[in-house]
Amino acid sequence: MKFNEILDDITVYEAGKPIELVVRDYGLEPGDVVKLASNENPNGASPKAIKAITDNASKAYLYPDDSYYELKNALCKKYGIDSRELILGAGSDQVLEFITKAVLGKGDKVLMSKVTFAMYEIYTKLCGAKIVRTEGPYHDIVQFKDLYDAHKPKIIFLCVPNNPLGECFSKAEVYELLDYFSSETTVIVDCAYMEYASYKDRAKKISPKELIAKYPNAIYLGTFSKAYGLGGMRVGYGIADENITSAMYKTRPPFNVTVLSAKAALAALEDEEFVNMSVEMNFSEMKKYENFAKNLHIETIDSYTNFITFLLPKGSSKQIFSDLMKIGVIVRDLTSYGINGIRITIGTHAQNEKFFAKFEEVYSKIA
Amino acid sequence: MKFNEILDDITVYEAGKPIELVVRDYGLEPGDVVKLASNENPNGASPKAIKAITDNASKAYLYPDDSYYELKNALCKKYGIDSRELILGAGSDQVLEFITKAVLGKGDKVLMSKVTFAMYEIYTKLCGAKIVRTEGPYHDIVQFKDLYDAHKPKIIFLCVPNNPLGECFSKAEVYELLDYFSSETTVIVDCAYMEYASYKDRAKKISPKELIAKYPNAIYLGTFSKAYGLGGMRVGYGIADENITSAMYKTRPPFNVTVLSAKAALAALEDEEFVNMSVEMNFSEMKKYENFAKNLHIETIDSYTNFITFLLPKGSSKQIFSDLMKIGVIVRDLTSYGINGIRITIGTHAQNEKFFAKFEEVYSKIA
Repeated sequence: MKFNEILDDITVYEAGKPIELVVRDYGLEPGDVVKLASNENPNGASPKAIKAITDNASKAYLYPDDSYYELKNALCKKYGIDSRELILGAGSDQVLEFITKAVLGKGDKVLMSKVTFAMYEIYTKLCGAKIVRTEGPYHDIVQFKDLYDAHKPKIIFLCVPNNPLGECFSKAEVYELLDYFSSETTVIVDCAYMEYASYKDRAKKISPKELIAKYPNAIYLGTFSKAYGLGGMRVGYGIADENITSAMYKTRPPFNVTVLSAKAALAALEDEEFVNMSVEMNFSEMKKYENFAKNLHIETIDSYTNFITFLLPKGSSKQIFSDLMKIGVIVRDLTSYGINGIRITIGTHAQNEKFFAKFEEVYSKIA
Repeated sequence: MKFNEILDDITVYEAGKPIELVVRDYGLEPGDVVKLASNENPNGASPKAIKAITDNASKAYLYPDDSYYELKNALCKKYGIDSRELILGAGSDQVLEFITKAVLGKGDKVLMSKVTFAMYEIYTKLCGAKIVRTEGPYHDIVQFKDLYDAHKPKIIFLCVPNNPLGECFSKAEVYELLDYFSSETTVIVDCAYMEYASYKDRAKKISPKELIAKYPNAIYLGTFSKAYGLGGMRVGYGIADENITSAMYKTRPPFNVTVLSAKAALAALEDEEFVNMSVEMNFSEMKKYENFAKNLHIETIDSYTNFITFLLPKGSSKQIFSDLMKIGVIVRDLTSYGINGIRITIGTHAQNEKFFAKFEEVYSKIA
């Protein structure tokens, strides 16, 4: 049997190891394993979201309202947008899938930063399109402009703030780029971690309403997976001009958000207090990571997210990652991104203390 | 902005109206509306699945184990297959998306029955491929063979039993076709309703293990949305030779089944008693529909599923569908399939009695 040639160039996305697997592989107790690898909210889900799930569990047999009236209505109110400007995805990932499918054909080009969210590449390749990347690891305005001029990509991916490094364009920088790019170019402004960035620095805050009013070629991506604490429920969204969303709707499978995910997201949206608490705690705990790293002469990247990156001056990040895993601490190794570093999700106070102790144990053995 | 030309030919899938919308549009009370339109299990979800959801609700913040070790392991045991022969989807729908993407390129052809599951067409068109359909509404061996010879399609869709009509090829008929088709042709054997068909007639029963051993070009599709009572959770699966699943894995987004959906499916799988009870009740209630229709001189299609089709000798199904909706009974109109009929999901005893009363009220007014 012959498969589509576009598959030849695709490697399967490797998710971080779940706790169960680490427990099994290294003979650890589940309680002894700390997972700081997937940028989940260490406070869990909002109690209101958990209640919405248990209250509605008996509805698991019913297909969701495919218009997602309640959840979309709540998001529209939050952002002051029209429901025709909104599309839900099974995570914001799926919105990436919709837009790449809607825009890209074989041989088209897209532009992204050298080190950025891995799914941009996978969805692009699934459309048979080609990837142009900037040279430096961080989002760089000049490089984006130059490569735009040289390649005229159909889609440009801006990850604001950027995963997996944590740096963040300001709103002014994003707008400067959007002013530079032609209005024929689709620009994805991936704001999965925006709740964190806008808390740390108001200059980073992007309003989807203003964004799409000024730039009808821009798409704002948001998610319930991070600050809203619903990573496992797979709910995200895209906000764009109706011209774009109606093209994306043609690529959307029906019932793409589960009935309980929609209920949980609605409840999470109504619990802003939980989100604020999570974001505040994140940055107070992050300070400890910065100090910890400084004391060990490890450089960190100034992060606008719920994770922090250690750039390791000695040792191999792959080895350190693997040594940490064996003693029950799961982080993300950045070797595959060409960086000798690890990305650590900011955990609870207790999880972070455990990380500090275990990391020192591993790191102190390196010459 | 220019979108992919493949979108020009795609119309957005129209899901059945959810109860909330009918309540809003017609000023009804939620308790007065009976939805027999989406082939959900009228017994709801298994109590064990509901318990698994509530027990695990607080894990909503955690990404699922992307290897889905537990659920895949349980499915492998059930079917006696290797985990490399299995892929999970957000509903079996998504497995259709994987395989079309993995196989089809622009201009390729696929073959399906004239009246069959609507998503086959949508996923095919999203790949820019062309659709060849049989002439008659029912799956027809001779027509499938003739059109295969004439068009050499890359994918053939067999819906066994068929949605939305309910008829069902026997295993022998499916094998006869598979013997006829070249091993280079991908054959999807969509068994979303197999739990019902195999109960009614053992000659319909297809074993995925035997199927893929005999035909490495076949893909068995199963789902938790019907007999397993988890329509709203979006869990289905594909079983195929490793050669096929490994191509599909390249098109699968990570975490495509939510953390609670995986837990619910695992628990549902362990509650065979619930499935058996559901299937038995389905056919004892279906008999009442057959008698009811007979008394009104309405022809029904012999159904191997959890729904029944009324072929209406008078009146317009579109009108009857709409009149029923206004008095709180939601069914599926088949006008868009070129059939003057309605598809009714077999409900609970009380729901079915309500349908009979309301249908008579509407139908008696037709000259």
